[in-house]
Amino acid sequence: MNTFGTYFRVTTFGESHGAAIGCVVDGMPAGMVLDTEAIARALDRRRTGRPGTSQRRETDEFEILSGIYQGRTLGTPVAVIVRNTDARPEDYAPAAEAFRPNHADYTWHARYGFTDPRGGGRASARETVGRVIAGAMAAQVLHQRGITINAQVDEIGGIPAADTDTIEKAIAAARSEGDTVGGIAALSIKGMPAGIGSPVADKLSAALAAAMMSIPAVKGVEIGDGFDSASARGSLQIDEFYIADDGRVRTRTNHSGGIQGGISNGEEITLRVAFKPIATLPRRTLPTVDRRGRPTTICMGGRHDSCVLPRALAVVEAMAAITILDALLAPHPEPLISYL
Amino acid sequence: MNTFGTYFRVTTFGESHGAAIGCVVDGMPAGMVLDTEAIARALDRRRTGRPGTSQRRETDEFEILSGIYQGRTLGTPVAVIVRNTDARPEDYAPAAEAFRPNHADYTWHARYGFTDPRGGGRASARETVGRVIAGAMAAQVLHQRGITINAQVDEIGGIPAADTDTIEKAIAAARSEGDTVGGIAALSIKGMPAGIGSPVADKLSAALAAAMMSIPAVKGVEIGDGFDSASARGSLQIDEFYIADDGRVRTRTNHSGGIQGGISNGEEITLRVAFKPIATLPRRTLPTVDRRGRPTTICMGGRHDSCVLPRALAVVEAMAAITILDALLAPHPEPLISYL
Amino acid sequence: MNTFGTYFRVTTFGESHGAAIGCVVDGMPAGMVLDTEAIARALDRRRTGRPGTSQRRETDEFEILSGIYQGRTLGTPVAVIVRNTDARPEDYAPAAEAFRPNHADYTWHARYGFTDPRGGGRASARETVGRVIAGAMAAQVLHQRGITINAQVDEIGGIPAADTDTIEKAIAAARSEGDTVGGIAALSIKGMPAGIGSPVADKLSAALAAAMMSIPAVKGVEIGDGFDSASARGSLQIDEFYIADDGRVRTRTNHSGGIQGGISNGEEITLRVAFKPIATLPRRTLPTVDRRGRPTTICMGGRHDSCVLPRALAVVEAMAAITILDALLAPHPEPLISYL
Amino acid sequence: MNTFGTYFRVTTFGESHGAAIGCVVDGMPAGMVLDTEAIARALDRRRTGRPGTSQRRETDEFEILSGIYQGRTLGTPVAVIVRNTDARPEDYAPAAEAFRPNHADYTWHARYGFTDPRGGGRASARETVGRVIAGAMAAQVLHQRGITINAQVDEIGGIPAADTDTIEKAIAAARSEGDTVGGIAALSIKGMPAGIGSPVADKLSAALAAAMMSIPAVKGVEIGDGFDSASARGSLQIDEFYIADDGRVRTRTNHSGGIQGGISNGEEITLRVAFKPIATLPRRTLPTVDRRGRPTTICMGGRHDSCVLPRALAVVEAMAAITILDALLAPHPEPLISYL
Repeated sequence: MNTFGTYFRVTTFGESHGAAIGCVVDGMPAGMVLDTEAIARALDRRRTGRPGTSQRRETDEFEILSGIYQGRTLGTPVAVIVRNTDARPEDYAPAAEAFRPNHADYTWHARYGFTDPRGGGRASARETVGRVIAGAMAAQVLHQRGITINAQVDEIGGIPAADTDTIEKAIAAARSEGDTVGGIAALSIKGMPAGIGSPVADKLSAALAAAMMSIPAVKGVEIGDGFDSASARGSLQIDEFYIADDGRVRTRTNHSGGIQGGISNGEEITLRVAFKPIATLPRRTLPTVDRRGRPTTICMGGRHDSCVLPRALAVVEAMAAITILDALLAPHPEPLISYL
Repeated sequence: MNTFGTYFRVTTFGESHGAAIGCVVDGMPAGMVLDTEAIARALDRRRTGRPGTSQRRETDEFEILSGIYQGRTLGTPVAVIVRNTDARPEDYAPAAEAFRPNHADYTWHARYGFTDPRGGGRASARETVGRVIAGAMAAQVLHQRGITINAQVDEIGGIPAADTDTIEKAIAAARSEGDTVGGIAALSIKGMPAGIGSPVADKLSAALAAAMMSIPAVKGVEIGDGFDSASARGSLQIDEFYIADDGRVRTRTNHSGGIQGGISNGEEITLRVAFKPIATLPRRTLPTVDRRGRPTTICMGGRHDSCVLPRALAVVEAMAAITILDALLAPHPEPLISYL
Repeated sequence: MNTFGTYFRVTTFGESHGAAIGCVVDGMPAGMVLDTEAIARALDRRRTGRPGTSQRRETDEFEILSGIYQGRTLGTPVAVIVRNTDARPEDYAPAAEAFRPNHADYTWHARYGFTDPRGGGRASARETVGRVIAGAMAAQVLHQRGITINAQVDEIGGIPAADTDTIEKAIAAARSEGDTVGGIAALSIKGMPAGIGSPVADKLSAALAAAMMSIPAVKGVEIGDGFDSASARGSLQIDEFYIADDGRVRTRTNHSGGIQGGISNGEEITLRVAFKPIATLPRRTLPTVDRRGRPTTICMGGRHDSCVLPRALAVVEAMAAITILDALLAPHPEPLISYL
Repeated sequence: MNTFGTYFRVTTFGESHGAAIGCVVDGMPAGMVLDTEAIARALDRRRTGRPGTSQRRETDEFEILSGIYQGRTLGTPVAVIVRNTDARPEDYAPAAEAFRPNHADYTWHARYGFTDPRGGGRASARETVGRVIAGAMAAQVLHQRGITINAQVDEIGGIPAADTDTIEKAIAAARSEGDTVGGIAALSIKGMPAGIGSPVADKLSAALAAAMMSIPAVKGVEIGDGFDSASARGSLQIDEFYIADDGRVRTRTNHSGGIQGGISNGEEITLRVAFKPIATLPRRTLPTVDRRGRPTTICMGGRHDSCVLPRALAVVEAMAAITILDALLAPHPEPLISYL
């Protein structure tokens, strides 16, 4: 349905061109000064793809409706809304509308029978605004526990992020040809304690994979060496344990990506997340089917991004923060004895 | 914790060398003749890696304790157990035992403080016996609805499955060198109706990714074109819609892997699942740390597999069946009107 | 936390004097014309205790933010908010404030450490506005399936509802003495099909009891003959089965209150719900403790109701509707064979 | 379905005359010495209605299959089974069988279509064996935290428990007339910390009410003054706060029954639970309907109890323990600041 998490619960709502979108965040600790600037920065980053230090927030103005008193969290649900200022008039003719290839038009139609055709309705990536708000709250709690989350571009169109010039050229070339490119985000979670995650049904790796796969346009997730490990020899994947100077058990390498047996081992958690190219190809006329089941063609116009990255990084970080906080709040087996 | 699913719930229990392992399956429809031979075949396949047509089941004898009357399901929980016949005596000295690199020994220790050291305890892949039993039940329900699930080897050690000879040589070479190899499983789900999956928080793609990532040794999951799509142009990823002869909306290609916007589109669902090499490297002495936090060395002996595939295929299929049935049983928005 | 239901999920949010209160309703069927007048009538009834046929809604104006397009449900979350127009300035001194006896001040303090002191914050019965909105939506779905829910006053201050004059006098007498009275609501659910409810852990009786007990001021719930059955002979409690003219299996009496073994039997479901007297006793000075743990006294002033009934009836109906719809949407064991 | 709890999860399985009944307990802390004698005593009490100091356990022998190593909990699921030694041969003719009035025969038939007719199948009170085992485990954890749970007979057939002689006569009279009586259990939970329970959707009072109402034959639940409070004046219900010698905030009286606003206040939690008379009336021939929908008569023979109390006390205690531990393990808002 529309709720992420069991112990830290984020419910998002809203259609792209409805009255508002937003979220209800249930499970924030009480008495914490809420950093609303951090929420604004995360929304900025989602909107522009840049680290969002700017103060301009002429769009995506959010309003906190509940759960805060005198600037502090109450431990009660924090409801936040963002008005859709550019909500268009209802001048659509959905009955006649065609299914856009590689969008969710057809599958939503198959599931719901009745959909909001304005800008993709709830299937629009605009839904992730609610996740980014909630993620910024979760990240603040994590930060207090020394956990930091960062996502960055790893590849775009198959070109490594370090090769900035080539990437810009590739994107420009795709755009000039009316085409789009995909990319890969690299996610890093630092400061994790060891022992977080449930080892069978709620593995931390499984929870993170589900969180990433729930982001629009994501088609693949890997942890640590991921798919590369499938073609590697076991002897080249060994993460030897040793005792660090601070007395902690550490590994010398991190092929495992910070998770072993579904539980964090205290090393950096590393994921790679594959985004497909944006499905909207400007100025192309494609054969398709309409909602009455008749063959037709469609030309998806408008100005669109050529690559979902780097704007999607804010969503990757938000989903990671929500997931990690949920895992931290899960009941811990509270060992009564320990051999260490 | 230890329960998979919300609407079709599978709880597994048991340690590798405890009295028994098993599962409780809650949510089976009532009145269905349960095919116990299908359960036996799935367990055989998990045990031997072969399709399991043989009748021999001298090990992994399962006993159904509840939920069945006169061979039919009652709609009540089906509890099934498998006795651990080779349960070893408790001749371990856990306090002194060293953490095996790349196993879950350390993370379990960090989480629980007290663990069963015999053969990995609950972290052993033997836990998946319960999943395979439950998956075989789920698959039977799916079969009645025309849905079939199949997993096969896609690659081993980087070599495509079609190249059987080379794979056998690669495994033999690794084994002779005291090494192991990883591999990739290809999962196919056919016969899915369109409209299954929840589009935001419980995307079918997210649920399948979590299910696969919950399998021991899995480090990556991709759907449809997956990571390849991240380096491809959008124009090469288009799945055009058309009206098939039977009147259904179909796509001409299947780059999406049968899921669009988190919801099934009625095409074949295709996943690739990456397994790391088995972590136990026979006859190698490795530096590590023991449970008292002292440096030590470890030599993991015993006869072990050199590659988790093809035995893991039965687990991939089981987790897919459990996940798909859970999605099918989720409340459907029941469209009251439809334009199609 | 703050979500009711598993299959039909209602999350409420908001503090009594915060910016707004409201709810997110997840699980409405798609394509249904939403009757917003019915929501307004339910809110009116909650506000005035009367059936609410009037059109005046100068307060409790609700705004639907999502989940509706062209007046129809989308099957996506319906977020609804009500602004708190009389939100008072933050002129409280919570550190010095005393715990009001029989209110939730102390227990909230013990749980959260930091609370909104304005009008009880989230512990205020104003929180139920969100439930009433959600309940009115659920009731509309139920109505389409022929299920109707009605709550009425059964007793006030120990006086049967039929004795209207005496009740009015008793309330007036209590008020003039600066006192309050409790009461009992009688809930009736008609039109239920047989076979709804899960027989062990999610009994329909248990779900209804939890729903009622979650209403502020409720201290007791009984189903059918309830506590009276505990002192009765079994022979006087028999609900004989017979075949009705329409071919349905019916019972001649309804001591069971429409639920047997936790599952509906198709008869009217009857509950009685006990409300304690309102805890705010005007103009009385009582000894208590403040938030610093010092003895003090408190005098709860202001104009307050003398009895929570009949205004609470709207909340009883709302919680019943939410609970019944949740049970209806739960996966059904789908009998494949039947002897009937 | 068949799982109680969210944070401490108990799944029961089994039919009255199937191979076995039992439970899977997920969420026990790790490293705890499990007191199996306490489980045996609880089962004895359920079986005989007496405190169970005896060592005889010739029936209800339980076997622990998992989750324990060297006598200590592993934090993994504890599966426990009890074989049904008196499982009868399948010599029933369910198609012809009649619905027993006031039992769950008809409602199960309506829900499942196919049921186990032997002794009520899963609807039998024998299902509670699994709950009692799990409850004994939960009680052990609670005991370590200073929380004790006790249920006793409050009334039988309308006669107060103190009047032992009259109760025995009333039961004997009912039995001699082929009749049965109901009763009320009084539940006491001592040692609770303040601040446990979620104030809106998962009120501790609501969770306890649901737990009690899920016990077979329960038709009513009240907390503190319960239904009596509905006819009382508010001024007579005040629980004044004061500072106890140990510095804790206490109340001088306990009309609230230890729960205010859904959260524990640190006082004794008191509930009363109403059980209807046993539905099986020996040697009476009653009109009813059979599974083919034809009028018939039924005579329920066999030796049965005349009153479900005091045997049900063990189940009341078990459900209370499971519920309280679940509430204790729920994420706590962790106040960062406090005025106290």
